[in-house]
Order: sequence, then structure tokens, then C-alpha cells
Amino acid sequence: MAEKKLVEAITSMSEDFAQWYTDVVKKAELIDYSNVKGCMVIKPAGYAIWENIQRQLDERFKATGVENVYMPMFIPESLLNKEKDHVEGFAPEVAWVTHGGLAPLQERMCVRPTSETLFCDFYKGDIHSYRDLPKVYNQWCSVVRWEKETRPFLRSREFLWQEGHTAHATAEEAEARTEQMLNVYADFCEEVLAIPVVKGRKTEKEKFAGAEATYTIEALMHDGKALQSGTSHNFGDGFAKAFGIQFTDKDNKLKYVYQTSWGMSTRIIGAIIMVHGDDSGLVLPPRIAPTQVMIIPIQQKKEGVLDKAYELRDRLKGFKVKVDDSDKSPGWKFSEQEMRGIPLRVEIGPKDIEAGKCVICRRDNGEKIEVALDELESKVGELLDQVQADMLAKARKHLESHTYVATNREEFEKLFAEKSGFVKAMWCGERACEEEIKEKMSVSSRCMPFHQECLSDKCAYCGKPAKKMVYWGRAY
Amino acid sequence: MAEKKLVEAITSMSEDFAQWYTDVVKKAELIDYSNVKGCMVIKPAGYAIWENIQRQLDERFKATGVENVYMPMFIPESLLNKEKDHVEGFAPEVAWVTHGGLAPLQERMCVRPTSETLFCDFYKGDIHSYRDLPKVYNQWCSVVRWEKETRPFLRSREFLWQEGHTAHATAEEAEARTEQMLNVYADFCEEVLAIPVVKGRKTEKEKFAGAEATYTIEALMHDGKALQSGTSHNFGDGFAKAFGIQFTDKDNKLKYVYQTSWGMSTRIIGAIIMVHGDDSGLVLPPRIAPTQVMIIPIQQKKEGVLDKAYELRDRLKGFKVKVDDSDKSPGWKFSEQEMRGIPLRVEIGPKDIEAGKCVICRRDNGEKIEVALDELESKVGELLDQVQADMLAKARKHLESHTYVATNREEFEKLFAEKSGFVKAMWCGERACEEEIKEKMSVSSRCMPFHQECLSDKCAYCGKPAKKMVYWGRAY
Ligand SMILES: [Zn+2]
Ligand SMILES: [Zn+2]
Repeated sequence: MAEKKLVEAITSMSEDFAQWYTDVVKKAELIDYSNVKGCMVIKPAGYAIWENIQRQLDERFKATGVENVYMPMFIPESLLNKEKDHVEGFAPEVAWVTHGGLAPLQERMCVRPTSETLFCDFYKGDIHSYRDLPKVYNQWCSVVRWEKETRPFLRSREFLWQEGHTAHATAEEAEARTEQMLNVYADFCEEVLAIPVVKGRKTEKEKFAGAEATYTIEALMHDGKALQSGTSHNFGDGFAKAFGIQFTDKDNKLKYVYQTSWGMSTRIIGAIIMVHGDDSGLVLPPRIAPTQVMIIPIQQKKEGVLDKAYELRDRLKGFKVKVDDSDKSPGWKFSEQEMRGIPLRVEIGPKDIEAGKCVICRRDNGEKIEVALDELESKVGELLDQVQADMLAKARKHLESHTYVATNREEFEKLFAEKSGFVKAMWCGERACEEEIKEKMSVSSRCMPFHQECLSDKCAYCGKPAKKMVYWGRAY
Repeated sequence: MAEKKLVEAITSMSEDFAQWYTDVVKKAELIDYSNVKGCMVIKPAGYAIWENIQRQLDERFKATGVENVYMPMFIPESLLNKEKDHVEGFAPEVAWVTHGGLAPLQERMCVRPTSETLFCDFYKGDIHSYRDLPKVYNQWCSVVRWEKETRPFLRSREFLWQEGHTAHATAEEAEARTEQMLNVYADFCEEVLAIPVVKGRKTEKEKFAGAEATYTIEALMHDGKALQSGTSHNFGDGFAKAFGIQFTDKDNKLKYVYQTSWGMSTRIIGAIIMVHGDDSGLVLPPRIAPTQVMIIPIQQKKEGVLDKAYELRDRLKGFKVKVDDSDKSPGWKFSEQEMRGIPLRVEIGPKDIEAGKCVICRRDNGEKIEVALDELESKVGELLDQVQADMLAKARKHLESHTYVATNREEFEKLFAEKSGFVKAMWCGERACEEEIKEKMSVSSRCMPFHQECLSDKCAYCGKPAKKMVYWGRAY
């Protein structure tokens, strides 16, 4: 039964991108819908990707001095209420616990939608002196936001993420950490996930509830829509003042700390799917793929074929390799391997064995390469590196070729009517202008990129004097 | 400020074991109390231990074919209610979510206290054929039980754990998996945590709500109290029948699956503390210690001392090693290293450098060993192995010397009045007898060990014919 589900054709991307996404997510067996409304079950193939993300991101965090901790999952209402902007941003979408055991709670608590308030409450008791600073803590956990519309990975009521929360003695140090972590995310996306991103700052309208500044990395999906892929917030001393987090500095004066937070979630798996996937299913970059090489024996019942397949597997132990020795047909196995996005397929049959070679097929571009068995290990290593590099190049080319420039309203509207992608345009910096764009065109400011260009001296939408270049887009 | 807190003396074990425990947990900076009642903050030193447990246990799981997944954290009330014994066991101690966003929920949901019901609901839709079996899934997550009395690690309203949930085609396979996972836990405890355990089966009274059989590993703490350290449950087809989880077998007949579940939690950190700790603080087995070797320079301001310390650190890169180059005194650093339970301390000062040696001090027994600098790497490796082995031997000796035998009621009562530890005694197998023992003596049956001995033919408590040998104890 499981077989049947896999090899049925999926909807093509060009026909219905949303349905294609849902098909891939289901048929590559990444998730299943659960009977808990708005929550998903992450299945082994999906969770293994998340484990690889966790491990590699966690290593990068620790290399910058991050320490992992674990905070409670509940936030008493009075604690959530302490920072005004923050509570306004989150209170409408939290789940409330009102009873513990058989009795009503004296004070209701929400399930954390994010943990700034808990970290602040902890730091208040834990930070006393400049010697206690900086605190550079992170936690891996799940959070809950009571979304009305949900989609696998992209928006669900519960999702997995990491949230870093730091406290510093100076505003400069907090700013440096905010930028450092954004760069960790951007480098991780490019180097590991083969996803190029635009780095920049969110507008006042789009920034995180309670932040002074929010930095973001924005990726472009295959359908030309943007996906916010990681954010890093500088809180200044706003939370510290709301929560009373003070320390005695070297000059013996009592000062407020400066704080940051930064997060990346299972949402990024949605980006992997929508940046790299194709009409045959998932396409995983080798550095994140739970299985990098699938060996598929041809005519496996012939003597020596399966043994040879196992021998090749053993020789490829330095990679994540499997043999598909099930009793399905080779064609079926090819489809499965493609649907699951496994980067390389090694085909080995009686004729190959006789000729001392095998055929390697690249998932990313379908290319078939004859490889002498002698050279297998080195060739597989080279090919995996090549696939990784080519996938990034291809995604970068897509990003670049789908980034447009508008210098006036006509161009701006025409681009969003006819094209899909990012539109770079100058902006006046006024919230009313941004809100009108969002309302009339369903287009949001993705970020004010760090790399600013001067495209004109007027706001492309309203014509007032320009302050910033902005990336605009339709977003997930 | 942080310094002051650390080096204050802690309560001695013999004076007040409970206070000693609390002191160690706080002063080794493993946890902090939070303002969320009954929930703890796991600080970096505590979480790093949990990360090491996770990594090593997860490796052992995967070697037996386990795949990780993630289920929702919420359980709709109707789903929790499906298995009668299970809901009776858990409903009194769950936290209820009644509102999502600004609106009341149509059906309230509890935060998972354990996830049998969610896995069953998922398996019902995911398992159709014998080809879909076995399912051997696990998740790492946090769970919530609304406890009234809480203690760090041992009992808190939220705790971290893993929960494995499997489904099998036959009762035999389920039974084999139940036993296999108990053995994984037992081996992990002995080989990694240096904690010897007694393996056995829980009585009907003490088994898990909804299980046919619960197996347990029981460890003995330094104060002679028992700690249930991991459990593995065989559900037979009870849950499958309650949830309707059926598959078509090879003989084309529709059958119910057989299920198991098994878990180990952050509670085990409490066991590490109470099995190995002493009046100077935590004592960590090398295989679980986040830092295995702390190098402490003596007279570090003298030329060459710090450089030498860093050189030794670089040479010890194969281990988890740090240099304490803070401006505290060596004595202070010694106390900190001891409080944190770091297995080896390397002392290096000007005289040592001149003599081409250093002093290594073992945390577990205080022994000081002069080591020629030439032999540092090999000696540190040997010592870590030795410490690991000696800690297990010591804990085993404690377990054996605190396991007593009672053959009649007088002996049974006298042992629990005068000694602390396990008491092995024959039991009639009747629940009323077990309940009387618990009520009158605050003693519970820990397990019916797999390794049964025949100590007498009568129940040591009531004198009726004996059915089983039981380990009795006072428990955390
Ligand atoms: Zn404007
Ligand atoms: Zn009896």
C-alpha cells in the first residue's frame, strides 16, 4: 500500500504549485496531517532532515559561544503582559492553559509562542554583575501559535525551532551579536541548504513585536514568492527596562542589559522543498540529505548482483548510503529515490559488474555518469560536492533572474501583475505608503537590504523623497 | 557574585541528604527554579549533561532500528479517553488548554503527559499491511504532569524525555522489543552513567496505565532510596483494539497490531547526582561529563605558566578539556571544578614545568598522581577509563552492600526500620498484601527481578505461599 502511494504521479509545479507542494510533502513522507487541528506529524524522512539541520546549526552556534538551556513551556499571563508591544503582538494567537489536573489555575498560562519573557524573567535573577555577561543562551523546543490557516512546515499551530536569547553589557555588543547570528543563518542556508538569501532589516511595520530592529534573511521560492527564513532581533534595553534586568558595571554603576533574540524553525524545510524540488519530487542538497546515495541493484536476483551492491555500500561507508534491496522493480525504486530527493543513485547490474563499472545518476539534473568501480569512492565524493555547488548556483541564478527593479508606480504595479519574484524599489520610509502597498497589491516589504543601491531619488510607489531601497514581494 | 555562591560549603550528605541534593543541583548550576510554579530552568551545565545523554542514547536506539519522529504536543480530550485504564491513570494530572487565541476551543485538549494516544491515532491511519510493520518510532520532547510536590529533575511539572512507541505484527515481536529496549537502558546506565541497575517486571499495582506488562530498571541512590530509571511497556493488543489499529497479514487476514512504549527522562540526571555525588558536589562519570579535564594553572602570572596550560589543552584535544584561566585563586578553582564534578584536574605550575611533570587529581577518589608531561595524553586516557570503571564498581558495591534479604515479617520490618536499601523478599502475589506494605511501611515493590531466587516458600510479609521474589524499597 505504501508503495502505491509513492509512485502515483504528483501534480506538476506549473499546473498548481500549492498542490505540488502538498503532494511532495505527503509523498516524500515528510509529514502527515494529524487529528489535532493545525498540528502536523513529522515522519521519519522529515524529522531526519530536521535532525541534520539541528546538528549543523547547533555546531555553528557553539562555535560562536552559544550554550544550550531549557526554559519552561508555560508563560503565566502576568509575565507575558510585562512588555507592551510584545504582548500585543502575541496575545491574540496563543493557546491558554486554564486547568491543571482537576482544578482551575489561579492564573492562566499560555504555551510559549516565543520565550523572550521567560528568558527575561530568568536573566533578572541570574545577572548581577558585568562578570555575568554576556549570556548567550539558546534552546531547541516547540512553540505554539494559534494560526487559523495552516500549511505543512510553513505555518502550523505547533512548530519546532531554536530560539537564542542573549544579554550584553553594551548596545554595541548586542548589535554585533544580532548581526553575527543573522550571518550564521545566511551562511548555513547557502553552504548547507544551497539556498541563497537576501540579508536586510525589516521595516518598522514588519519588525518583531517588542524589537528595536529585526534583521531577516529572505529566500525566493521556485514560484517567485518569498519566504522569511530566519530572523535576528535587537531589543536594545526595552525588555530589560520592562523586566528590571540590571547589572553592576565595572564603574560600579547599575545599568540595564541589552538583549537580542534569533530563531530558525522547521519552516526552513518548506524552503528546501520549494527552492530545490521538481516535478519528480523532493531534491535534497547533499549536506542535508539523510541518505546521500541510494544503490539500486538491477536484475538483483542474478547471482552476485546483491552481493556487489552490498560491497559498494561498504566501500561508500564515508557517505550516507543505502541499498534498496526490496522486491520492487528498479523503475519503482528509481521513482522512490527521486521522490525522496536522494542526491545520487548508483545503478549496478550484471553487465556493469562484468564491465567493472556502474552508472551514477544525479537527482538534481538527471545526468547519468559511467563510473569505473575502482574510482567509486572518489567519484561519489566529487559528485556530491558538485551537486551541492550546482544546486546553489542554480538557486542563485533563479533568485537573480527573478529580482526586478521598479523606479515608478507603473513599473511597480506592472511587475507584480506580470512577474513573480522580488522587486527592488526605492521607498519613502512612511508606514502609510507601505500599508497601502500591502492592502492594494498584497505585496509586503521583505527587507531593506544591507547592500543598498540608489535606484532613484523618489519612492517608487508614492513619489515622495526616497529613504531606502526595499525588496518587495509576495510572501509565504 | 557567581563566585561567592559556588564556593560556600554545601550541606553534608549525612546531615541532610535532601538538602545536600538541592545544594548540589543549585551550586553546580544545573538548574534554577523558575517563576512558573513546578517548572525548572535547565541551565547550561545541566543541559549539557542532557545533550550527552541524548546523543549516546539516540545512537544506541538507532543501532536497533529506531527512527525519530515528532507528534503534536496536544491531545484532544476525546482521544485521551479512548483507552480506559490509560485515561484513568493520566487525566487527574494533565494541564488543559481551553482557549486558542481569543476564542474558547470546541473541545479542550491536554498537553501530552505521554503520547500513546497520539501514536495510536497516527498508526491507525499509517498501518495497513504487514509490509508497514514493524514501526519503531521515538520522539525527544517535553511532557507535562501536574504534580503537586516537585523536586529538580526528580519530579517536575514539565520534564524532558524520549518516548519510543512501536507497533508489531506479533505478540512475540512486541515482547522482544520491550525487553530489548529495557536492556538498552540498562546497558546505557551501566556503561555510560556508571549506574548499576536491577532489571525486572513491575507488579500489577505498579505497572503503567494501560500496559499488559511494565519492565523497569531500578537504581539505588546513596541514601538507600530507589529511583525508577527507565521503563519499557508491552501493551499487547489493548491499545490497538481501543483505537482500531489493524493490518492485513500475509495470510490475508485482518489483525490487530501489538505495541510497546519505553521512556527515559531528565530524572536520570537526579540519579547521576545521587549515585555518584559527595560532600564536595557533583561527581560525573567521564563518559557523560561535558568537561572531562580541567587544567588549572598554579601561579599563572609567572611567565610561561599559562602558555604551558594552553599547550597541554591543545595536546589533550581528543578529550573534552578546558583551562581555567580566570583570575580566581587556584583553591577557588579547585572547589569549582570539584563542585561541577569534572572527572580530572590537571595542576600545572612553574615547579612542575621545570620538572617536566604535572599533577592529576581524580575527582572520584581525590587521588593525586604525578604524571610526566611526555605521557600526558596516554595517562589522561587511561585515568578517564579507570575513573569510569571505578565509579561503576563503587556504585555496584554500594548496591550490593545495601541489598538485604528478609524471609519473614519481623526481618522485613526490622530491615526497613534500621537499614536503607533494597530488601529482597518472597511475595504472595496479592495486591492487598502489597497495598498493606505500602500503606503501613511506605515501602513499594520496585520490581520482580528477571533474575529470580527462591529465598523461602512463603510471602515474607503475610506468610501465604510465595509466588515471586520482589525487590522492595523506599523510592523517589
Ligand atoms: Zn512611498
Ligand atoms: Zn503476602
